[in-house]
Amino acid sequence: MRTGKVTLKTLVERTGLSLGTVSRALKDAPEVRPETRELVKQMARQLGYTPNLGGVKLRTGKTYTLCIVLPVDTRAQDFTDSGYMALTSGIHKALQGTLYSLIVQPQLMDEDELAGLRHVVEAKVADGVILTQTRPDDVRIRYLLEQGMPFVTYGRSELHTPHAWFDTDHEDMAYRATRRLLDKGHQRIALLNPPAHLLYSRHREYGYRRALREAGLPQDPALMTASELSAADGQQLVLQLAAQPDRPTAFICANEYAALGALSAFQQLGWQAGRDACLIATDDSNISAYFVPPLTTYYSSLVDAGTALGQLLLRRIAGVAAEQLQQLTCAELLERQDDRWPPQGAVLSQRAGGS
Amino acid sequence: MRTGKVTLKTLVERTGLSLGTVSRALKDAPEVRPETRELVKQMARQLGYTPNLGGVKLRTGKTYTLCIVLPVDTRAQDFTDSGYMALTSGIHKALQGTLYSLIVQPQLMDEDELAGLRHVVEAKVADGVILTQTRPDDVRIRYLLEQGMPFVTYGRSELHTPHAWFDTDHEDMAYRATRRLLDKGHQRIALLNPPAHLLYSRHREYGYRRALREAGLPQDPALMTASELSAADGQQLVLQLAAQPDRPTAFICANEYAALGALSAFQQLGWQAGRDACLIATDDSNISAYFVPPLTTYYSSLVDAGTALGQLLLRRIAGVAAEQLQQLTCAELLERQDDRWPPQGAVLSQRAGGS
Repeated sequence: MRTGKVTLKTLVERTGLSLGTVSRALKDAPEVRPETRELVKQMARQLGYTPNLGGVKLRTGKTYTLCIVLPVDTRAQDFTDSGYMALTSGIHKALQGTLYSLIVQPQLMDEDELAGLRHVVEAKVADGVILTQTRPDDVRIRYLLEQGMPFVTYGRSELHTPHAWFDTDHEDMAYRATRRLLDKGHQRIALLNPPAHLLYSRHREYGYRRALREAGLPQDPALMTASELSAADGQQLVLQLAAQPDRPTAFICANEYAALGALSAFQQLGWQAGRDACLIATDDSNISAYFVPPLTTYYSSLVDAGTALGQLLLRRIAGVAAEQLQQLTCAELLERQDDRWPPQGAVLSQRAGGS
Repeated sequence: MRTGKVTLKTLVERTGLSLGTVSRALKDAPEVRPETRELVKQMARQLGYTPNLGGVKLRTGKTYTLCIVLPVDTRAQDFTDSGYMALTSGIHKALQGTLYSLIVQPQLMDEDELAGLRHVVEAKVADGVILTQTRPDDVRIRYLLEQGMPFVTYGRSELHTPHAWFDTDHEDMAYRATRRLLDKGHQRIALLNPPAHLLYSRHREYGYRRALREAGLPQDPALMTASELSAADGQQLVLQLAAQPDRPTAFICANEYAALGALSAFQQLGWQAGRDACLIATDDSNISAYFVPPLTTYYSSLVDAGTALGQLLLRRIAGVAAEQLQQLTCAELLERQDDRWPPQGAVLSQRAGGS
């Protein structure tokens, strides 16, 4: 088994092409034919060729490294993964065939939120940064703007200075989820939302409120919750909401872990999903199809989001204006159940209140 | 809001201590009193102080960076996170208060498995490496041994040369899970195991086989499966096993996603867990408590595993012999149901066969 270093020379030997052609093919030079470029790059990938970046870096002053900053809570024992593997996997897709590699810099919850970022900027670890979990007025974004470091955010902000971002239309997703439940006949709909300081949480709340307003229904603060969206949170919040005198008949869970906890609460309450209450989840991560019952959800691919983020950042590093690097995508409805309300022929449980 | 650079001088101003004391406290020098060291380090953490590593790195030739290599499948859309956030979170715990930071290097499934590692070693990205998903004869481990790069593996190998590792006793876990089901009266027990090339999959199979052997029962290959353990895999495998003439009455799922899929299959089959078949999961990640029904599982903290890996690697970098850096931990039983078999008073379904 080969464990020695794969060099340009190895690629020359294996492809039978000249050194100049191999080298130009790896740089995607237009004078090399597309089939030849593809052949060389495929061989480079197969053999695990790493260009001698030392020389390139010295010449260009670039690191050929992108960095994604991911929030990590070292205090939590009971936490769920948040799709970051899917997201980073998508970024890697965008980087395949380029000289760039990706590193992950943690942002520790109990530290200054700029600590990790400062390390990246001051130690010149990367040419560009990807941020997640954006807030309306985000000190990390302001820091990167000040420092002139290229970056793209997964999620928008409300800062005046434009920056590159990719986002799912969370307002639209929550609006559609709420409308769907209203159309089925629900009037008391609970929103299990992410923490309120995150901008996408506010976007979801706007969408939810807009749907209720259009239907002429009151926007009851007692039905709007914010939490970390763990299964434990989902369970507890549903139990609390169920104990209200005029309890909700439908729940919109912002992720599948909260939805799993909600279903567990249904079981404790003796409720049957679709008979005693309905449940919709957003941010499907391909597991709620296996819940009992399978859930209707809204899905937006995290892999695709990662790929878009990687591409946007490469273009930002190449000098494209931030205003031109802003992309919004819409979530897709995955219809897995017929959640008509009240269910035909079913007798409403007493707890359901007078809707 | 402060976004300027935090230097040693900032720490001197804020603590009122001398520059020498602050500097020695950050290095954990024994001549500084423990309370003073703690005070300085706490202030440094709060303010997000990053030492000027440039100077330290030049003097010492060290990067003060650790690197964890994580397998990433860019082809998959339907995949579940595998606790890597918990693991990295634990590593960060081990690094708090040290000069070290952690980066993540992906190992892409469709590339040479050494490609990512070569980048780390050849570009001198890190002082030490953490590997996961070990195999009996692991080319990545051999490469790191050859290169003299300090490393620790999450999982053992069967290589002759000793190396630092941390592992959960998977043989013991599978043995105990199988014994538990045998003691309840099950005779046909299916094992939903991880892919067979991973060493921990073999360890689990040893434990499972040992329990059956001790009970004088046959070891039927038809009951042993290997898969990626997604929810889809769990569902499909249970449906296939259920269609066997002498179908299993109990299932050991190696993770919770497979168990979720298994429960979904139970629903399709019209089975009730605990009545028509029993289910146990290993590698609990704190969500199966919210399944319907909640599952009995074996749990081993990934955060603690990460912390152990970080500590072992720091000691390895400091020159401690690899033989002294090998740690095995046992999983803990989380008993969430009484899975006696056959259930008292229940009528066995015809499909259950003659156990």
